Amino acid sequence: MKVTKLVKNILSKYESDCPGTKANLARILCTGKLAGTGKMIILPVDQGFEHGPARSFAPNPDAYDPHYHYQLAIDAGLNAYASTLGMLEAGADTFAGQIPTILKINSSNSWATTKDQSLNASVDDAIRLGCAAVGFTIYPGSEHALDLFEEFRAVAEEAKAKGLAVVLWSYPRGGNLSSAGETAMDVGAYAAHLAAELGAHIIKVKLPSDHLEQPEAKKAFVDAGIDLSSQAARVREVVRSCFNGRRIVVFSGGAKKGADSIYDDARAIRDGGGNGSIIGRNTFQRPREEAIAMLTQIVDIYKGKA
Amino acid sequence: MKVTKLVKNILSKYESDCPGTKANLARILCTGKLAGTGKMIILPVDQGFEHGPARSFAPNPDAYDPHYHYQLAIDAGLNAYASTLGMLEAGADTFAGQIPTILKINSSNSWATTKDQSLNASVDDAIRLGCAAVGFTIYPGSEHALDLFEEFRAVAEEAKAKGLAVVLWSYPRGGNLSSAGETAMDVGAYAAHLAAELGAHIIKVKLPSDHLEQPEAKKAFVDAGIDLSSQAARVREVVRSCFNGRRIVVFSGGAKKGADSIYDDARAIRDGGGNGSIIGRNTFQRPREEAIAMLTQIVDIYKGKA
Amino acid sequence: MKVTKLVKNILSKYESDCPGTKANLARILCTGKLAGTGKMIILPVDQGFEHGPARSFAPNPDAYDPHYHYQLAIDAGLNAYASTLGMLEAGADTFAGQIPTILKINSSNSWATTKDQSLNASVDDAIRLGCAAVGFTIYPGSEHALDLFEEFRAVAEEAKAKGLAVVLWSYPRGGNLSSAGETAMDVGAYAAHLAAELGAHIIKVKLPSDHLEQPEAKKAFVDAGIDLSSQAARVREVVRSCFNGRRIVVFSGGAKKGADSIYDDARAIRDGGGNGSIIGRNTFQRPREEAIAMLTQIVDIYKGKA
Amino acid sequence: MKVTKLVKNILSKYESDCPGTKANLARILCTGKLAGTGKMIILPVDQGFEHGPARSFAPNPDAYDPHYHYQLAIDAGLNAYASTLGMLEAGADTFAGQIPTILKINSSNSWATTKDQSLNASVDDAIRLGCAAVGFTIYPGSEHALDLFEEFRAVAEEAKAKGLAVVLWSYPRGGNLSSAGETAMDVGAYAAHLAAELGAHIIKVKLPSDHLEQPEAKKAFVDAGIDLSSQAARVREVVRSCFNGRRIVVFSGGAKKGADSIYDDARAIRDGGGNGSIIGRNTFQRPREEAIAMLTQIVDIYKGKA
Amino acid sequence: MKVTKLVKNILSKYESDCPGTKANLARILCTGKLAGTGKMIILPVDQGFEHGPARSFAPNPDAYDPHYHYQLAIDAGLNAYASTLGMLEAGADTFAGQIPTILKINSSNSWATTKDQSLNASVDDAIRLGCAAVGFTIYPGSEHALDLFEEFRAVAEEAKAKGLAVVLWSYPRGGNLSSAGETAMDVGAYAAHLAAELGAHIIKVKLPSDHLEQPEAKKAFVDAGIDLSSQAARVREVVRSCFNGRRIVVFSGGAKKGADSIYDDARAIRDGGGNGSIIGRNTFQRPREEAIAMLTQIVDIYKGKA
Repeated sequence: MKVTKLVKNILSKYESDCPGTKANLARILCTGKLAGTGKMIILPVDQGFEHGPARSFAPNPDAYDPHYHYQLAIDAGLNAYASTLGMLEAGADTFAGQIPTILKINSSNSWATTKDQSLNASVDDAIRLGCAAVGFTIYPGSEHALDLFEEFRAVAEEAKAKGLAVVLWSYPRGGNLSSAGETAMDVGAYAAHLAAELGAHIIKVKLPSDHLEQPEAKKAFVDAGIDLSSQAARVREVVRSCFNGRRIVVFSGGAKKGADSIYDDARAIRDGGGNGSIIGRNTFQRPREEAIAMLTQIVDIYKGKA
Repeated sequence: MKVTKLVKNILSKYESDCPGTKANLARILCTGKLAGTGKMIILPVDQGFEHGPARSFAPNPDAYDPHYHYQLAIDAGLNAYASTLGMLEAGADTFAGQIPTILKINSSNSWATTKDQSLNASVDDAIRLGCAAVGFTIYPGSEHALDLFEEFRAVAEEAKAKGLAVVLWSYPRGGNLSSAGETAMDVGAYAAHLAAELGAHIIKVKLPSDHLEQPEAKKAFVDAGIDLSSQAARVREVVRSCFNGRRIVVFSGGAKKGADSIYDDARAIRDGGGNGSIIGRNTFQRPREEAIAMLTQIVDIYKGKA
Repeated sequence: MKVTKLVKNILSKYESDCPGTKANLARILCTGKLAGTGKMIILPVDQGFEHGPARSFAPNPDAYDPHYHYQLAIDAGLNAYASTLGMLEAGADTFAGQIPTILKINSSNSWATTKDQSLNASVDDAIRLGCAAVGFTIYPGSEHALDLFEEFRAVAEEAKAKGLAVVLWSYPRGGNLSSAGETAMDVGAYAAHLAAELGAHIIKVKLPSDHLEQPEAKKAFVDAGIDLSSQAARVREVVRSCFNGRRIVVFSGGAKKGADSIYDDARAIRDGGGNGSIIGRNTFQRPREEAIAMLTQIVDIYKGKA
Repeated sequence: MKVTKLVKNILSKYESDCPGTKANLARILCTGKLAGTGKMIILPVDQGFEHGPARSFAPNPDAYDPHYHYQLAIDAGLNAYASTLGMLEAGADTFAGQIPTILKINSSNSWATTKDQSLNASVDDAIRLGCAAVGFTIYPGSEHALDLFEEFRAVAEEAKAKGLAVVLWSYPRGGNLSSAGETAMDVGAYAAHLAAELGAHIIKVKLPSDHLEQPEAKKAFVDAGIDLSSQAARVREVVRSCFNGRRIVVFSGGAKKGADSIYDDARAIRDGGGNGSIIGRNTFQRPREEAIAMLTQIVDIYKGKA
Repeated sequence: MKVTKLVKNILSKYESDCPGTKANLARILCTGKLAGTGKMIILPVDQGFEHGPARSFAPNPDAYDPHYHYQLAIDAGLNAYASTLGMLEAGADTFAGQIPTILKINSSNSWATTKDQSLNASVDDAIRLGCAAVGFTIYPGSEHALDLFEEFRAVAEEAKAKGLAVVLWSYPRGGNLSSAGETAMDVGAYAAHLAAELGAHIIKVKLPSDHLEQPEAKKAFVDAGIDLSSQAARVREVVRSCFNGRRIVVFSGGAKKGADSIYDDARAIRDGGGNGSIIGRNTFQRPREEAIAMLTQIVDIYKGKA
């Protein structure tokens, strides 16, 4: 595995981490078609848990099989595959060593009655399954946010001590947030910043809208003359909110949508200095060949070729 | 104990489990009249705890004695006997080695004021009683679901580390679910899928009705043109929702009912690709000879002879 | 200490317990005037905690002294003395080896605002005080029942591992139960059965009334033609609900009442196959000589002489 | 340190305690001007925590300094000094060995929104600070009472295992208690008894009024013909409720009041057989010389000289 | 590092602490331009977590970078830099040994729905990052105050055992406090005193207003004739409430305001005997040169030169 200067520079920003964690970050950064570029595409498959199997896999029934996703991520040349305990257990031996995996530690589900998640796996599960990282979701704003932060603290401390990387999904939700506020620019940047403050290595947030939720934040943006008119500009502000670019930030794709829209998102992430995409339903709900073609195009966008 | 190719193939799907756990799965799959066929019948006796002794055992008073159930499961040639701490303690020495046992770790009772269960035994109890597996119930949808998932996580992680198999009863209940929704096709498949995602080895669900609870799931089924008109077709969808058949799925019989209805259920399970039945009140509330005759008939159905 | 065949037969029912636990059960069964008969009388003194010192001890002021109760139990030839941490600590050295003791681990009190109990002692306290068993109370039906079951699980598992016996007070209370239901026949048998399912060695319940609380249970009794018209018949049903007599069941006496009534209770317990009485206020609130005479009479009843 | 026969007799009542704990009880009993008499005066200073510094120390500003209290207790010839973590840390080295100290483990404060206390120190803190005992407060009657009992259980078990003595402040408060009930005779005796049942070595309660809160307790007192008309008689009933005098009981002085009233209290405690006083605000809120004179007078009262 | 007599005297007040903790207090007291004077200025940067990145850093965008704050604290000759887990991890290696750091263990955020904080780091994190101290916030008055105290207890006990110093932010908030009461003189002195009672080494409070919240406290101040008319007098009362000056007390600056106002605050702190300032937004939200000039002036004030 070749570690480029660009990747070494990224790793140098993680100055308090142990060599084991840095090696796992390097594995993710130096795998697949974007290896060594500092950009990454991750395939996340926790939608079966979160939305149920029919809504997630019936559109492309091959996706009912956990092996399908491992193979898709490998064949599309992605950087990593993220999924839940059961899904990884079902393929971790067959695909051992073929692609870095991220064990999603907590999840919600369609029938949850609170804005909370359950812890469904452990750091030791990630170790025995050979994962490069653990993944965790927090809901800033939710009545359960402080508890989720504390659960994350315990998971992250153990993961770092055991040489794993830590990926944090930071999704504002509930509490005093308006519906528009959950994807607002200021809230999204704050959510990304919280992830950095909490010690995440890789931060996953949604692409922010141009809505501004908090008057004080709006004033701060206006006073500082910060341009937030384009998606790329908003990505740039999120990246800056992650320790001025010292932390890897990737953006999620959301529900299935048209390919052109996905490409536009990728260009905005690239132009704003984001580190890449985490893209699930938009790939595995399409036929395999179509998904691979789309991912190839996204790779080209991140390489500046499209 | 002969482990057939068919069983070896099933075991190979549990690719992240340790040899101890696989050996215990093999013990269950290779015991009784269905040994080696990949099918199984389990006798579960937790109704005394859940519904009280009179409702459970007065119809057939011999069943007040814990030894009765061990002997029934052995004489009927079943694959395993599942019960609670006290019930297994009362016969574990007398019947040691004669049939695989599953220690049901948690239970509810008729007087519970919430849709929750209490943890009444430990993984170490299962070890000292020589069990092949632990059993656990979750209530997806309940206000207590996330807590139950987390309790399961701890039990399952410990059980796997100690070489036991893990059987998960996944029973949707409460919260935002309608009464019909608790046995709906989409909800049942989701419940089975959650069990697989949570890392269960053997998944126990109820036979789903043709009701569809969630509009988004209904749309997904319709869009994908999935046939759900027969019980067998619905079983097939549940099996597919369990990692495309990579996990063992058994179906419960419910309250006492007519023998023909039970045989119809078994044929649907067989034809839909399910792995078998878990059948309690319909056996131990009948006179012993009648119960054994019925179980013999179910065995024949699973063998394709009836 | 002579262990009779009858006692050996009882011990053989505890087939999953370690020799240490069986030895402690034998100590209780083979002490006092009923030694070796399979019957037992236990003196419980937790009323000071539960109802306060004035209501408990002012009727017979000698009973303010913890030594009084040790001596009473010894002089009356009882099988065991059960009390709380402080009460046992105050006499454990003076009376070491003279009578088996049971450390009551949890208790409620007159000013409790919920139907719950506090854990006031540990299994290790029982070990250091030389006790033969720990005692624990559950309130089936209460909003706190599931928590109490889980606390009991931890206590019982530790006690069994450390060679102690486990005595479980199972007192239905609160929740959806009617006031009459708390002592109903069906509820009492269910409560006793829950204690057996939870793994108790000795089960303590109240003598059941002829009220039936749950329609489904009533139907089951009627359908099975079970006679519940006499107190002895109701005792018999409780005994049968405890694994068909595989577990020791003792019955409590309740508030102070006339001697004849107490003797009638004992005869019903004897005739119904119960293992004995646990009798507190009816002894220590009487003058010592009167109490000893009464206990002598109860011993004679259990021996079939009165 | 001379241990008198009288003290040896008291120690013999603590028959289940280890030599380390007895030695610490002996240290308290054999220090100061009341050494060897079985009587004791303790200086408690947790009012800064409970009521704030201005209300506690502004009346005598020297008392802002933690050293002041150590020196006061030493110079007045008291048996022990009880205070909080920070207060003891601030003088434990300077005054090491000069007076037994009691680390108050939990406290409430003026701004608390519930009738509960926070645990602010540990048993190990008491060990490293060279304390003779830990102190703990319970609020029988409060909605938090069961939790406080359970917290006490853990603290007391650890303290006893580590050779410390355990002092329990038992203050009825809240829940179903009336305001007058919080200092009622029956409630106070019950509170003292609960402390004994919970395993405390030294019990601290308030002097009870002649109010009777619970009709059943009132009836018990009346039926037994117990005289409660004088303060001394009420002290005697509290002492009897503490295992018939087998446990040390001290009484608190409450808010600042006239000296004569304090002397009357001490005489009642002495005449009723109580073991002494725990007296804070009435000493440290007076000028030092005045406080020492008052304490000298109280010593004389306990010695029967005043 | 030169430890002056003045600092040795301060250290001698921490008489129960281990040499490791004293050495870390000495590091803070003997670093920067105020080294050895007993005065200190600390730069705290947890506003990104508490208020979000835009409101905190947009006014001076260089401050988005964690390295900026390390360098600012070093170049301004401050005594210590306090920040959160992620912020310290991002610079701990680059600036190792250049300035004492304080790891802020818990934090709130703008979207919190309760007056509580989440624990986001551990004492072991502080150890591995080479910190001199841990920082913690309590909210006296809040419904969560008792829980926060208990969390602090655990953190402080572990920190002291591992040779770290403990800094406690004591901010009255919520519950029964009025809005004016949160900064009232009596409440502030009580909050500072609670921090001392809880065992903090360095106490951080807000400068108190002349409002008096609690009638009993007001009476106590009036009765004792304590002058509270000037800011310096109020600082003096806070210092006295911290064990009569035995504990280090620093005061926070609050939201950004004019330089003269800040200098007035510093003079009041100095004249009242406080130990210094903890000043965040008023420095890092100004241009770097302006901030350094301001801090130089504050240093001069504490040295008595301005």
